[in-house]
Amino acid sequence: MIAHIIVTPKPVVNDPQGVTVRQGLASLGFREVLDVRVGKYIELSLDISSEHEARERVEEMCRQLLANHVIEDFRFEVIRNGRR
Amino acid sequence: MIAHIIVTPKPVVNDPQGVTVRQGLASLGFREVLDVRVGKYIELSLDISSEHEARERVEEMCRQLLANHVIEDFRFEVIRNGRR
Repeated sequence: MIAHIIVTPKPVVNDPQGVTVRQGLASLGFREVLDVRVGKYIELSLDISSEHEARERVEEMCRQLLANHVIEDFRFEVIRNGRR
Repeated sequence: MIAHIIVTPKPVVNDPQGVTVRQGLASLGFREVLDVRVGKYIELSLDISSEHEARERVEEMCRQLLANHVIEDFRFEVIRNGRR
């Protein structure tokens, strides 16, 4: 199975990286950009055949290592190799 | 419009961050993880009402600033505020 995980700063948390990107885009002329949030994208290849088990394990990985639950949210999808 | 952008290291490019995450997961007992790739996730709020125009502008932002086309791929989706 493949897992696609997105980790984002919580809405109430400052995102200085996002502010920097917004300023960079503005200085290039992209003034239509109102707000930028920058997070992480993590793709896992898993030696698991059950989608249910994969979901449980990925959830646990996010809680233990991939996301900092104090300041970050996470969401993910699990895909049978190559197809959703 | 909202844009969700994913920037990933190209498949042929080394991803030391991914290797480190895989080792970290393995040391926590997640030995079913075969491979990890780490990229960026960028969410933009755009003051644009046309989906077509938003796609063109976001593509241009990725080419000029958000992705390094030598070592990274990007993909994105554009969503009318809140809905796809």
